[in-house]
Amino acid sequence: MLYSETFGKSVKTVSSDTKLASHSFLVKGGFILQTAAGLYSFLPLGYKVLSKIHTIVEEELEREGVQNLLMPVVTPASLWQESGRYEKMDDIIAKFSSKRGHDLVLSPTHEEISVDLARHFIKSYRDLPVIINHIQTKFRDEIRVFGGLVRTREFIMQDAYSFDRDEKGLDISFKRIVKAYKKIFDRVGVKVVEVEADSGTMGGSDSHEFMAMTGVGEDRVLKCKQCGYLANIEKAEFEREAKNLDEEIKSFKIIDQPEWVYTMEDNIKHYREPLWRYLKNVVYKDEKGKFYIASIRGDQEVNEAKLKAALNRSFLEPAGEEDLKKMGTKHGYVHSWGENAEYIGDLGLKMVRNFVGGQKKKTTDSINVNYGREFDYPLADIVEAKEGDICAKCKKDKLKIKRGIEIGHAFKLGTCYSDSMGIGFLDEKGKTQVIHMGSYGIGTSRLLATIVEMNNDKDGIIWPESVAPYKYHLLGIDLHDPKVKKQAEKVYKALKDSREEVLYDDRQEISPGEKFKDADLLGIPYRLVISKKTGEKVEIKKRIGKEQKLVTLEQLLK
Amino acid sequence: MLYSETFGKSVKTVSSDTKLASHSFLVKGGFILQTAAGLYSFLPLGYKVLSKIHTIVEEELEREGVQNLLMPVVTPASLWQESGRYEKMDDIIAKFSSKRGHDLVLSPTHEEISVDLARHFIKSYRDLPVIINHIQTKFRDEIRVFGGLVRTREFIMQDAYSFDRDEKGLDISFKRIVKAYKKIFDRVGVKVVEVEADSGTMGGSDSHEFMAMTGVGEDRVLKCKQCGYLANIEKAEFEREAKNLDEEIKSFKIIDQPEWVYTMEDNIKHYREPLWRYLKNVVYKDEKGKFYIASIRGDQEVNEAKLKAALNRSFLEPAGEEDLKKMGTKHGYVHSWGENAEYIGDLGLKMVRNFVGGQKKKTTDSINVNYGREFDYPLADIVEAKEGDICAKCKKDKLKIKRGIEIGHAFKLGTCYSDSMGIGFLDEKGKTQVIHMGSYGIGTSRLLATIVEMNNDKDGIIWPESVAPYKYHLLGIDLHDPKVKKQAEKVYKALKDSREEVLYDDRQEISPGEKFKDADLLGIPYRLVISKKTGEKVEIKKRIGKEQKLVTLEQLLK
Repeated sequence: MLYSETFGKSVKTVSSDTKLASHSFLVKGGFILQTAAGLYSFLPLGYKVLSKIHTIVEEELEREGVQNLLMPVVTPASLWQESGRYEKMDDIIAKFSSKRGHDLVLSPTHEEISVDLARHFIKSYRDLPVIINHIQTKFRDEIRVFGGLVRTREFIMQDAYSFDRDEKGLDISFKRIVKAYKKIFDRVGVKVVEVEADSGTMGGSDSHEFMAMTGVGEDRVLKCKQCGYLANIEKAEFEREAKNLDEEIKSFKIIDQPEWVYTMEDNIKHYREPLWRYLKNVVYKDEKGKFYIASIRGDQEVNEAKLKAALNRSFLEPAGEEDLKKMGTKHGYVHSWGENAEYIGDLGLKMVRNFVGGQKKKTTDSINVNYGREFDYPLADIVEAKEGDICAKCKKDKLKIKRGIEIGHAFKLGTCYSDSMGIGFLDEKGKTQVIHMGSYGIGTSRLLATIVEMNNDKDGIIWPESVAPYKYHLLGIDLHDPKVKKQAEKVYKALKDSREEVLYDDRQEISPGEKFKDADLLGIPYRLVISKKTGEKVEIKKRIGKEQKLVTLEQLLK
Repeated sequence: MLYSETFGKSVKTVSSDTKLASHSFLVKGGFILQTAAGLYSFLPLGYKVLSKIHTIVEEELEREGVQNLLMPVVTPASLWQESGRYEKMDDIIAKFSSKRGHDLVLSPTHEEISVDLARHFIKSYRDLPVIINHIQTKFRDEIRVFGGLVRTREFIMQDAYSFDRDEKGLDISFKRIVKAYKKIFDRVGVKVVEVEADSGTMGGSDSHEFMAMTGVGEDRVLKCKQCGYLANIEKAEFEREAKNLDEEIKSFKIIDQPEWVYTMEDNIKHYREPLWRYLKNVVYKDEKGKFYIASIRGDQEVNEAKLKAALNRSFLEPAGEEDLKKMGTKHGYVHSWGENAEYIGDLGLKMVRNFVGGQKKKTTDSINVNYGREFDYPLADIVEAKEGDICAKCKKDKLKIKRGIEIGHAFKLGTCYSDSMGIGFLDEKGKTQVIHMGSYGIGTSRLLATIVEMNNDKDGIIWPESVAPYKYHLLGIDLHDPKVKKQAEKVYKALKDSREEVLYDDRQEISPGEKFKDADLLGIPYRLVISKKTGEKVEIKKRIGKEQKLVTLEQLLK
């Protein structure tokens, strides 16, 4: 391909809110262009990379016996109502009505549709196990987009669905996909770690995430060096340390307190005691307006994913000042017991004796508050693990936080969709049995960004050969000299004739400096230079190294 | 692939509203499944065919220098408002609002987005010409769906967009795409004719359709055997024959007429004169509620596409009884002149003297009505050509109607989008010039159906080798015999090892008769049979022929 004719050439500047290296290099290099917030086009160079990723994904999944097909983007609301996710996922599902009055959905994922396919074609044990897969456009009506292709509203995803006769079968299917995923990530040049994760609105029990530990990204992973425990912050468990369990339990008292004391900061100023000593109450409400109070220690923060899991709610949002008014209270005056709401406490409440606070009134509060005496409701793991917390698995080392990008997810859904949507099969004895299901996805457009995030330097992208848009980037320098031009064209033609993928920068109006800069930015694995200096030879240099070599055309073709 | 493990096996019955052979065979054969009206899944067998079609499409377009990329499915309403099609195409565009309050569109086509890309990257004459292309899911909120994959709401389309500096350039780009299209249709086994067509809401002047003359389908093409003229019925021109121009023009008269006479049928009963003798008036209204009266001869029918083109309206619908009331008239009593509406007449009005009717009141009507005397408004080609009408081009032969499926479309858009959305380029002198644009599309999911429609017999599909899901269909007969089973598995393995695409029907519970039936239905080019009878050999038969041959495995592999 001639670079002069390529649609979507490099640009000099990118918008100032471009934070990730991958985002910046992909836009600057002419790989992608944003049409509107979270809606991207893949330009010819970017589309070449994307296509190679898709080929690798399909190949590796096929090797594990997965069958590729294609489900529609638009699906009927009725299927989502059946599974219960029409309401549950309301915050990200784009819904619309057709002219014929049908309620339709822009699918954010394809569990429901795959179940619908399965109930058409899976009748007996003979039809199991089976894993189906497609690569399809998805839409999630995200409030926030992030990092170019990392979090978009429209994105491309590979999603596979496995159907098995029992848990053992599901376990085998799960392992086959995990094996394929590891090969895929390896082939495209992205190192991943497997992480325990929250199942969120997907349902099911077991959930693994594949994280690229890029050091940037929205996902935070907690890691224990000692035992290797790895978990997404949404799920990461930690050991609550005993704070003052040697202290004697004192008598509950209501004491005077100046009116200005009501935040954690005020408490510290007033009492000069550490944060863990104070009670903190955070109010949430669900989609029906029911209130929940999460009672935790002052040194911790509620983790919404954990709270949802503990309360078995798919939707919760922080209550606002208006909501508190409805409850008959206000910010800073929420009590640790006795309000008109459902209470849940964190496990950490058991590790402190004689709490301060939890019952602020105008000029009074309480001290010597103890769980099990003043209040006694269910406790669960509802706060976020922090750097330095003790690993819950080995209890030996402190957890460290690392940032990453989630590029793959594998869920053991079990029977939750089979139950809600009614899919079963006849076993050998003619008895109906329930199907065990798994769901597996790789965000391929996000993967493209992650490849760049993990393979770049200050000058640009360093594409792994497996997904590079071209193998060779031929730079013609001094093209005003007819001899050089002829030689460059000869090399270009020879490479094309040998079916090598080559991008030829044949622009005459661009300086050599700019061409070299573009070559580093575009990140094609092998840079070839032809100039007055190189004569009959070709200068070859790997994008990743410094060594330059002069070779003949014959040597190059070999 | 083992057929026993294939997801989406053949089914015995299809819904009774399955009219086209392609629809029936694709559903029966397990190639596709409808999820909801006009929303289809491609099952593994169908997806294999679709992928092969897409590879051929991309290859042939690339050969003509077209650059493949990928634009998003969801696009911002603002782009459609810029071009004016947000309103114009309202009847088929699915619109929705994001949670952030952005108005979005499920793209029914991609002119606007490609123009938006072009204005980012086309700056000067150096960036021209360029043709970009993608294969992407589209959504059109059709009221009616038809023929399985022929007219769906979600469908897959290849759509290319060319950008040129002038008309001459556009002409060259247009020809390149037409060349690629012909090769594509040829490679996938579909004979097409190129037909003049209406530009509809696309804008622009010249429009070519590629029609597969299937004998079925929604599209009707008129053909002149004499001169080869071919045109879609929406556009087909014909010569209005002189009916009675030798008759003397008589004096206009208002005569008594029984109250019951007001339809064309009533006129015939009453006057016993041929249909062309009566005036007929059909009322339409546009999106703003403005009324138009199409005045035509009683033997003709208004063609809405032609009427829209003549009135330069993108939206018109027949007026209802309520609308007529608003105009102060009613069905059967619309006058050929004088109503509160814009009039347009068909060219055929000039070819009749002394019309009957056109001014029906309760018990009177008029006779000896003549165009140019009683009424005198613009005439245009607004009625539909019929079988037997005279060809407008050669004026020598009668037109014949043939049914077909439109599988490709090429539009010379010219400067209509460049004007409305403002894209230009700097020429050699630094002067801004306007870009000339073309738009080209093949409905690839529809093409899949068309391939089947043109390649089948009473028993099923006859896939052309280029797009067949597999090359070989190996049937294992008498598999309960271990020797036969071993031989079948040996042949299956040998073919796979030679990288041949083979589907092995290894089902034990299915009778030989059913396997043969399935083989004919699925339409894979070469049927291989292994049974007790064939021994060490393999029986090979082409799907299309009758000849069966016994060959050795070695001969087969050659």
